[in-house]
Amino acid sequence: MEFASDNAVGAHEAILAAVAEANSGSARSYGYDTWTIGAEAALASLFEREVAAFLVMTGTAANALALSTICPSYGTVLCHTEAHVNTDECGAVELYSGGRLTGLWGDGGKLTAEIVENWLDALIRGEHESKPVALSITQSSELGTVYRLEEIKRLSEICRNRGLKVHMDGSRFANALATLACSPAEATWKAGVDIMSFGATKNGALMLEAVIFFDPALAQDFRYRRKQAGQLLSKGRFLGAQMSAYLKDGLWLKNAACANGRARFLAQELRRNRSIRIPVETEANEVFAIMPRRLFDALQAKGAHFYEWPGKGPGTDVIEPGECFVRFVTSFRTSEDEVKRLGNLAAELGS
Amino acid sequence: MEFASDNAVGAHEAILAAVAEANSGSARSYGYDTWTIGAEAALASLFEREVAAFLVMTGTAANALALSTICPSYGTVLCHTEAHVNTDECGAVELYSGGRLTGLWGDGGKLTAEIVENWLDALIRGEHESKPVALSITQSSELGTVYRLEEIKRLSEICRNRGLKVHMDGSRFANALATLACSPAEATWKAGVDIMSFGATKNGALMLEAVIFFDPALAQDFRYRRKQAGQLLSKGRFLGAQMSAYLKDGLWLKNAACANGRARFLAQELRRNRSIRIPVETEANEVFAIMPRRLFDALQAKGAHFYEWPGKGPGTDVIEPGECFVRFVTSFRTSEDEVKRLGNLAAELGS
Amino acid sequence: MEFASDNAVGAHEAILAAVAEANSGSARSYGYDTWTIGAEAALASLFEREVAAFLVMTGTAANALALSTICPSYGTVLCHTEAHVNTDECGAVELYSGGRLTGLWGDGGKLTAEIVENWLDALIRGEHESKPVALSITQSSELGTVYRLEEIKRLSEICRNRGLKVHMDGSRFANALATLACSPAEATWKAGVDIMSFGATKNGALMLEAVIFFDPALAQDFRYRRKQAGQLLSKGRFLGAQMSAYLKDGLWLKNAACANGRARFLAQELRRNRSIRIPVETEANEVFAIMPRRLFDALQAKGAHFYEWPGKGPGTDVIEPGECFVRFVTSFRTSEDEVKRLGNLAAELGS
Amino acid sequence: MEFASDNAVGAHEAILAAVAEANSGSARSYGYDTWTIGAEAALASLFEREVAAFLVMTGTAANALALSTICPSYGTVLCHTEAHVNTDECGAVELYSGGRLTGLWGDGGKLTAEIVENWLDALIRGEHESKPVALSITQSSELGTVYRLEEIKRLSEICRNRGLKVHMDGSRFANALATLACSPAEATWKAGVDIMSFGATKNGALMLEAVIFFDPALAQDFRYRRKQAGQLLSKGRFLGAQMSAYLKDGLWLKNAACANGRARFLAQELRRNRSIRIPVETEANEVFAIMPRRLFDALQAKGAHFYEWPGKGPGTDVIEPGECFVRFVTSFRTSEDEVKRLGNLAAELGS
Repeated sequence: MEFASDNAVGAHEAILAAVAEANSGSARSYGYDTWTIGAEAALASLFEREVAAFLVMTGTAANALALSTICPSYGTVLCHTEAHVNTDECGAVELYSGGRLTGLWGDGGKLTAEIVENWLDALIRGEHESKPVALSITQSSELGTVYRLEEIKRLSEICRNRGLKVHMDGSRFANALATLACSPAEATWKAGVDIMSFGATKNGALMLEAVIFFDPALAQDFRYRRKQAGQLLSKGRFLGAQMSAYLKDGLWLKNAACANGRARFLAQELRRNRSIRIPVETEANEVFAIMPRRLFDALQAKGAHFYEWPGKGPGTDVIEPGECFVRFVTSFRTSEDEVKRLGNLAAELGS
Repeated sequence: MEFASDNAVGAHEAILAAVAEANSGSARSYGYDTWTIGAEAALASLFEREVAAFLVMTGTAANALALSTICPSYGTVLCHTEAHVNTDECGAVELYSGGRLTGLWGDGGKLTAEIVENWLDALIRGEHESKPVALSITQSSELGTVYRLEEIKRLSEICRNRGLKVHMDGSRFANALATLACSPAEATWKAGVDIMSFGATKNGALMLEAVIFFDPALAQDFRYRRKQAGQLLSKGRFLGAQMSAYLKDGLWLKNAACANGRARFLAQELRRNRSIRIPVETEANEVFAIMPRRLFDALQAKGAHFYEWPGKGPGTDVIEPGECFVRFVTSFRTSEDEVKRLGNLAAELGS
Repeated sequence: MEFASDNAVGAHEAILAAVAEANSGSARSYGYDTWTIGAEAALASLFEREVAAFLVMTGTAANALALSTICPSYGTVLCHTEAHVNTDECGAVELYSGGRLTGLWGDGGKLTAEIVENWLDALIRGEHESKPVALSITQSSELGTVYRLEEIKRLSEICRNRGLKVHMDGSRFANALATLACSPAEATWKAGVDIMSFGATKNGALMLEAVIFFDPALAQDFRYRRKQAGQLLSKGRFLGAQMSAYLKDGLWLKNAACANGRARFLAQELRRNRSIRIPVETEANEVFAIMPRRLFDALQAKGAHFYEWPGKGPGTDVIEPGECFVRFVTSFRTSEDEVKRLGNLAAELGS
Repeated sequence: MEFASDNAVGAHEAILAAVAEANSGSARSYGYDTWTIGAEAALASLFEREVAAFLVMTGTAANALALSTICPSYGTVLCHTEAHVNTDECGAVELYSGGRLTGLWGDGGKLTAEIVENWLDALIRGEHESKPVALSITQSSELGTVYRLEEIKRLSEICRNRGLKVHMDGSRFANALATLACSPAEATWKAGVDIMSFGATKNGALMLEAVIFFDPALAQDFRYRRKQAGQLLSKGRFLGAQMSAYLKDGLWLKNAACANGRARFLAQELRRNRSIRIPVETEANEVFAIMPRRLFDALQAKGAHFYEWPGKGPGTDVIEPGECFVRFVTSFRTSEDEVKRLGNLAAELGS
């Protein structure tokens, strides 16, 4: 029963097959191969506009590289206190950009336009404080919730008015989109997003993310940045082939829809045990829950893989002594049976 | 006729197969999987000692991360003027370490103990100049030559006496070793190397390099550095599996020996055309040549892929007006027939 | 009525005179002059031990350089959320060290051993999060409070046990010491402080701070760092002369005692107006107060210079709507009369 | 006999007096005082146009901050191999900008348009190599020579055509200007310079340099950069007062003319000894000479302070075994008598 992370599973077979197919013959290196060029075109087509798209190998690199283009050494990027860039990337944004991150708290893993606006309004130190240059939001969020289009638009509007760029950490963008049921364009640039990290690894690829600039002018020298960061793969075909397969016939959305469905089912199954609370809506492929620590230990002992989750939690539901805050993640490979077994186990174990 | 680079070919079938095999089931992420642990152990065994080995995805990242552990912001790493770190990594070492590189010239792509010693002896500026903290040598070198064990030992000795660490950029280490015909241990730590970048991508992997610390104490916090640099792959199994296959049954040395043999054969073939000079010994899998630009253009037109090479060249053989300096690279996939065809073509075209 | 900052006044006459005296004749440059060497010796004598002391020109540089020696790119320095390094230095620590700061909240401008310990205990992300490497405390604190020796010792003990170094931002160290009434040694290294920024500018110098390493081994390459940071003054005598005059005959402590006395008097005077609350003890040369915004505006209009203070305030006394949180700073030049005039004005203006 | 450096002498009395005068009363801190605002206006007037001028405390900081505004992490700044930024600033440009420097060789301490153009023309590596973004020239140069207006214009033209900015390290700009006998405007922005480091410390100030942007748009966020670099002085009046006094009644040019005159006289005096060669024209306040090492030692022993000079020397005059390359520097304080004494001594000592 694997619910530790969506990176605990391997790659989707179609993507692996595409890698194997790309192996024959010679190809131009460093991303000038036909697979990569095709993948870049596919991304433009997907987003219904000219984009500057760059394939890289990890989500941390995608985020840090994306933000390095809009954050100078004296700048700061606003993000949720518990955003991945702030808590799980070991200072990568700071390394690549030289700047800093400013974590703001928002309930349920999301920031609101009001939170950002109030923070900006309170600034009075001028050059003594890092200059706010961008906002980074995570879609779907660190708590498995999904920003609605209207929420993104309001955030983007405030940012635009104040001269801040908007970055979306879309490590689980596919999962958010499967829930939003709108077009990729509507969920990003039409809502005011300037740059995104478009994730694929967690949703079926081996190692693949893309940095996508909706305003290609922002990407002017990005090839240099990617190279300098050690993210320019010599045998670039192996990234291009993954991306092409990932997007082909909507595989990426099918995988996400599958994972999301399993997560919703899991939330439902877990609720059978009355001692488990699910304090935030399950909107993507993660289920966050509060449960007795005794139950947590018992489930682990019975072979359920999932983690206690650090941080303050949802902010709206108090974790009592003796309880713990946990996270379950589903993936394109999670089976209904696996969820059912976990549900039964949780139900049997009681509190 | 593909002689542009050893990264223009795909991956070796055995390595691709290992990736596919590693795809089934769940695994711990971030390099704590059994494939990676096995690969780390295999590297220790290969080098006949305890090592701290870390898998990363590009040679640029391997070099920059390795050097970041020994070069502070006020430090400088000595290297050959035309070393890959100095000319082809877009400032990656500077980004990761904050320090700088100091290029020294040596004929034939190699530095000698005397060159390094003289440079160190001439330092008189104290804190006004970056502090020399390490030497980085490329094995096999940027000109396809191979440092002999005695040469490495003498360089290491001077460095040790002056408090400098020794890094080896072993992007083509396999090719050098195939020529040296000694053990990996003899070619590295027994000759005084402290840290190496152990390349696999150019010699059969999809995307795989290892940073190897022969003194594990130097690697103390390297996990943090790798993560911060965006080089910690979540589905780490896909790197571990490649490395295991790369080392298994000496595949890496067989690939290198094949490539080297083709290069020697190519040098011999090219010499059939009297207007082609080969100014440095072909000791690994690269052939550097000086040829009339007219011949260069004619060969390209007939479908031979190889590059004019930037930089000053060997330093000992003058490139005349009307001539150009070029590089041919062979790989584990280069066939005898391919070499023969190029040789015939060159012979036919004359000057 | 100047209470805006202790940097709004000029330099003490004795220090200015020392600068003028140092102007004659030739001297070795870059800090190898006799004034500087004398000042370094005076600091060692003051702290009753061998120290490595380095003169620099701003507090921001002192803090950032000090922390750069103990914080690698993947490290993080713990500090109070409202510490000067975190809020008023525009990312200088991040620029010089490459690492990041982690702000922790503590009431009254101070961190407690418990706060630091709990935070360290909650870390579970390993290499995914920046590694805590040091604690920086401000003495006197951002809210004009003073850490007691026992508090520093308990903080240092926890840090030592966890492998963290302790830095003291002593931009107003003289003011703290005047209150603690102990020796400089007792207030620093005997209480476990490893490195300090020893401030002089706010307390009478023109531009002068020292970075002091109580363990000279930590300072090994500091001369390089200072040079690289643009903080090595060519005509170093002008810093050495200032420091010698600053320490001579206890001028620094007399200045601080004067400023502290004026602050205590000011707090007393302000309390005559019942609408003014002083929520934290006035322990050094700053008075923090909560007052009606109407009163704030009226005082400003009458020529009182002081600032509304950003940040969350003391944490224990709620700022009501219509109120504002303000700071008054006294200096060695503040006169009793100036305080009295402000006190009278505040008393007359009512709420 | 002090010829070691123009920073071995103190400050000019008028500048010291201005510092003392600025000491009375309160003033706005952080460069918003009237002295600083006046100095900024004086610089604009001096250069006959709107400029954005920022006072800092060291030449290293001025250069590194100036270049940080035009050099991103993946960029490189071209400069002479022996430029101060490249050899004597311990990686400051790299620290502040994240980018790198590329040293090009030019005889006599100067680069020519042809050298720069040829280097740019030879670039073929694209994103694999740092992107050239700026040229930095030193005026007067590292060898005491002076770029003519025509030379600067031709360099600037090439840079403009290729998208590179031009920076002038004017640490000894006054000395160059005294020789050029043109207006400051003609010597800088009218000749195509975008940003300059305007030195004052070596020519009479205590610690003072200005970064001047001839296109204020380039300076947009420079206040943040200066603060982040620890170069924003709280008691900014002490810099403003220095600059005002430095410019007042042409003090800066008088000082420079004096120093230059002494240097020319010194060159003439040294030539009395036939074993001394002066291989580059003495155009500013430095005399470079080749002399027998025996003579060098003898002069030192007799109390002449000057240095053996590192680096390759002029490039046009070979330094023979038994000889050494040395530098003499004169300043506004150097007396005719001091020069005469050295001249006599050299003449007496023979070879």
